[in-house]
Amino acid sequence: MKDQAYLNELRHSAAHLLAAAVLELYPQTKLTIGPPIEDGFYYDFEFVEPISENDLQKIEQKMRELVKKWHGFERNEVSVEEALKAYENNPYKQELIQEIADKGETVSFYQSGEFVDLCRGGHIAKPNEELKHFKLLSIAGAYWRGSEKNTMLTRIYGTAFPTKEELDAYILQREEAKKRDHKKLGKELDLFVFSDLVGPGLPLWTPKGTLVRNLLDDYVWQLRKEKGYARVEIPHITKKELYETSGHWAKFSDELFKITTREGHEFAMKPMNCPHHTQIYARRKWSFRELPQRYANTTTCYRDEQTGELSGLSRVRAFSQDDAHVFARFTQVKEEFLKIWDIVQTFYSSFGFDLKIRLSLHDPQEPDKYLGGEEKWKEAEHMLREIVQEKKADAYEATGEAAFYGPKLDFMAKDSLGREWQVATIQLDMNMPERFDLSCVNEKGEEERIVMIHAAIMGSIERFLSIIIEHYAGAFPFWLSPVQVRIIPIAERHNEYSYQVLRSLEQVGVRSEVDDKSESMQKKIRNAQREKIPYMLIVGDREMESKEVNVRARDGKTENMKVEDFTEMAEEKIKNKS
Amino acid sequence: MKDQAYLNELRHSAAHLLAAAVLELYPQTKLTIGPPIEDGFYYDFEFVEPISENDLQKIEQKMRELVKKWHGFERNEVSVEEALKAYENNPYKQELIQEIADKGETVSFYQSGEFVDLCRGGHIAKPNEELKHFKLLSIAGAYWRGSEKNTMLTRIYGTAFPTKEELDAYILQREEAKKRDHKKLGKELDLFVFSDLVGPGLPLWTPKGTLVRNLLDDYVWQLRKEKGYARVEIPHITKKELYETSGHWAKFSDELFKITTREGHEFAMKPMNCPHHTQIYARRKWSFRELPQRYANTTTCYRDEQTGELSGLSRVRAFSQDDAHVFARFTQVKEEFLKIWDIVQTFYSSFGFDLKIRLSLHDPQEPDKYLGGEEKWKEAEHMLREIVQEKKADAYEATGEAAFYGPKLDFMAKDSLGREWQVATIQLDMNMPERFDLSCVNEKGEEERIVMIHAAIMGSIERFLSIIIEHYAGAFPFWLSPVQVRIIPIAERHNEYSYQVLRSLEQVGVRSEVDDKSESMQKKIRNAQREKIPYMLIVGDREMESKEVNVRARDGKTENMKVEDFTEMAEEKIKNKS
Repeated sequence: MKDQAYLNELRHSAAHLLAAAVLELYPQTKLTIGPPIEDGFYYDFEFVEPISENDLQKIEQKMRELVKKWHGFERNEVSVEEALKAYENNPYKQELIQEIADKGETVSFYQSGEFVDLCRGGHIAKPNEELKHFKLLSIAGAYWRGSEKNTMLTRIYGTAFPTKEELDAYILQREEAKKRDHKKLGKELDLFVFSDLVGPGLPLWTPKGTLVRNLLDDYVWQLRKEKGYARVEIPHITKKELYETSGHWAKFSDELFKITTREGHEFAMKPMNCPHHTQIYARRKWSFRELPQRYANTTTCYRDEQTGELSGLSRVRAFSQDDAHVFARFTQVKEEFLKIWDIVQTFYSSFGFDLKIRLSLHDPQEPDKYLGGEEKWKEAEHMLREIVQEKKADAYEATGEAAFYGPKLDFMAKDSLGREWQVATIQLDMNMPERFDLSCVNEKGEEERIVMIHAAIMGSIERFLSIIIEHYAGAFPFWLSPVQVRIIPIAERHNEYSYQVLRSLEQVGVRSEVDDKSESMQKKIRNAQREKIPYMLIVGDREMESKEVNVRARDGKTENMKVEDFTEMAEEKIKNKS
Repeated sequence: MKDQAYLNELRHSAAHLLAAAVLELYPQTKLTIGPPIEDGFYYDFEFVEPISENDLQKIEQKMRELVKKWHGFERNEVSVEEALKAYENNPYKQELIQEIADKGETVSFYQSGEFVDLCRGGHIAKPNEELKHFKLLSIAGAYWRGSEKNTMLTRIYGTAFPTKEELDAYILQREEAKKRDHKKLGKELDLFVFSDLVGPGLPLWTPKGTLVRNLLDDYVWQLRKEKGYARVEIPHITKKELYETSGHWAKFSDELFKITTREGHEFAMKPMNCPHHTQIYARRKWSFRELPQRYANTTTCYRDEQTGELSGLSRVRAFSQDDAHVFARFTQVKEEFLKIWDIVQTFYSSFGFDLKIRLSLHDPQEPDKYLGGEEKWKEAEHMLREIVQEKKADAYEATGEAAFYGPKLDFMAKDSLGREWQVATIQLDMNMPERFDLSCVNEKGEEERIVMIHAAIMGSIERFLSIIIEHYAGAFPFWLSPVQVRIIPIAERHNEYSYQVLRSLEQVGVRSEVDDKSESMQKKIRNAQREKIPYMLIVGDREMESKEVNVRARDGKTENMKVEDFTEMAEEKIKNKS
């Protein structure tokens, strides 16, 4: 495997090639920029006539044709005047040249074959030999420089790899991800729905989807209960004063849903739960003996996201957070962090996720982004480093990734397609307690400032669901499947026995159904497979006689089992979260 | 017992007497109106100097003095001019006189002793004999004619009864209700809290309060699950379009919390859940075989209430509704209503509430208040009458009490103080399905319009809690108590055994604590009593030896029991909701 620097050069070179091919086919097109990105590259164009994804093949063909004559990239340094003249009909390039000039940098052009582009460099040496395994992927609209005030350009995405194997593997993963798209599966499995009347970014949950949500939330609650958490409940709105005190009013201003009451008071819908939870803690005085106070609360947060940024369950306007806050003395932080870490590990290993740990720190270069002074931040970050060391965890540090009130441990999960997601987070907060004047009375009878720990396990339940729907391709493990067992009688005379089996399964809490519709068995099996139900129990004469069921697993494996053995296995799976 | 008409005359007479006494003591005072009300009477005054509740005794004394000379009420009819002249310095009475004149009615004054008041009549015959058992109760501010645009007056409340026994009983009930005030008990029992930063009408729930809420909600869910309900989940906001379709935008306009997003879209926080639930039903086509669809959802509704109208948990700005909607064919309505009725009966009888049924109908005189045509209403109301007959229930009809989309059955509960509350409600709705075009495919393969049933069991959980906190005076039944058992070791050497007992209780899910603080046993018992914990288990040498506990009930009864017998009793109580 080549390193990322080489990949960037390869893909940047491919972007040049894409621009060259586009110009050959659509000579009126205006070029703008074409950088490498994480998984490939893109180039933004202003076309005279719109193009579609159907045109990509033609462009790719032209790229293959042109690259044969591309033996290298030749650098030419030119004066600003020359450069501006070369692009006299292209305001985008002119804007870029002007910026280079304003910074006092050198303007350079790069040429390959007959194609010349404004560029600062970073290419491979021999495109005709190295640039063979590329593919154009999709087109999308993109504003010039990302601002909706500017012209909408056409962005063509592509990717390139050093070998055919790597390219094929990537294309395969991409197709697999498309098949697993949670928006598509969510509809097919009848988990959630969007309504035009309710609006985008606001999913509604069907009985099956609600069941899955509740199973996940109950699991987190079970783990927390064992660690001494108690549930609390809070309203979803508040007077502005709460967020002025916490700092959210200034910090979240654009994303806050604001309300003016009929009496003229200013309210907001909560973008986070911590300020509300401080008000539960603040209801009375606490002795150090009563700490930590651990509050858990699954509740909704709201963000005024722009419509264009919404996407299925990944980015919504109202998301359910399995939130928790621990109000503790500074001396209790380590123990409480480790308890939460335990919960995170238990929870994510149930789903087969490997976790990496990111220690997210503040950026001392940008003090405006954070609350509180440098001293407090250093103390808090030092504590987090100690915890990571004590856990002997393999953590990497990321400057500038802290929350605005404190540093955090982020857990990164790798899914079954090898994609990495930020999931759980544990945050140390020495600023909110200061702002809300939270304290306890210590051994000496003095008021002692406390700290807060913020700890979400799933984070947003919607986003977590989008991840696991794709991780499992919709085939949830047994304990999490909305319908766990479908019993299929072969003929009508097997219905009664089927319902007997149903009742024994229901008695131990297995979610089961009998499909006694007048359809062929093959069709019933196909239906159950499409719904990704973990087990079908086929029931005919033989099964009835022997008090058995013919167990057909989702993956096609079949075996005959005594009813009580199947029931026992099902119970075991529920217990073990498998 | 005298009837309500006589009570009204008695109390109206007492209001005259109150006005007379006030004028004797504060001659500058302007009189306004003084009607009888449900439990007594009031009179609104404009005082020159503010008075306080401390002055009530003096006024009451003066009333007792004056009434001796009140032998009757003498009516005098006067001309409008005379009347206006008599009240030339009193704009309130002048306004009233003008209104009487405008309606072409006769202006009359009534005189008792030396006191004369503008009045249309309705008094007792012999105040000096009949008006003996009265009491002034409280003062409050009240706007003239209830409008905040008018002057704030001083309202004096009082009551009067025909006999001393009745007055004493009323005063006692009133004092008992004050002691039971849920706002006071909610704080003492640490169930909920209000924060100045979050604002009035927005309670925050402590661990204990949240536990009680969840126990209640789980109970309702258990009952519903048995009847085939499934849980769904919905966002708390929506685009305005949903409520334009449902009719809520126009109907709830003042009480809607409205939001304008940063992109300029109009959103609202939901005042009801039915429109959202229709969008879950509408996600696909339904065969008649799949109906009814029964959706249950405990979720928050929001109303922009005026600050002055808020009161503890009884009237809030965000309330949690244990809501449910059934989407059914018209032919299924009766069966579904009866199922819900079962749930209501089981639930409320657990709390010892007697239920009365009110059949709330629309008012044909005010068609603007309702959606849909007269025919639909008649059909729906006829169906409800049939259901009530089938149940052989003792229902009374109330015209004008229907929801704006359909008639309803309201369940009225009488609490331990004899006060009546409207609690559960079952509503038949033939209008929303029309507006959202909800249907199923019937036996003939045709689209058939369906109906909706709205069914909340507790209604608002906040309001239900305010009722049961007062009903039980905070001493919740065992199954509902946040802490069910407190174990009190007599000396330190009993601690270990106490924790053994704790573990066996926890194992069967009994919420228990050990109080091993270094305080006297008497103090520990007082603490547990103040917290209204159902059982204390006192543990000393004798108990340790015999594997027993000394059980001390909240009401003071004590007995020694084997640990396993107590545990079994506790389990039984939880199971029976007692």
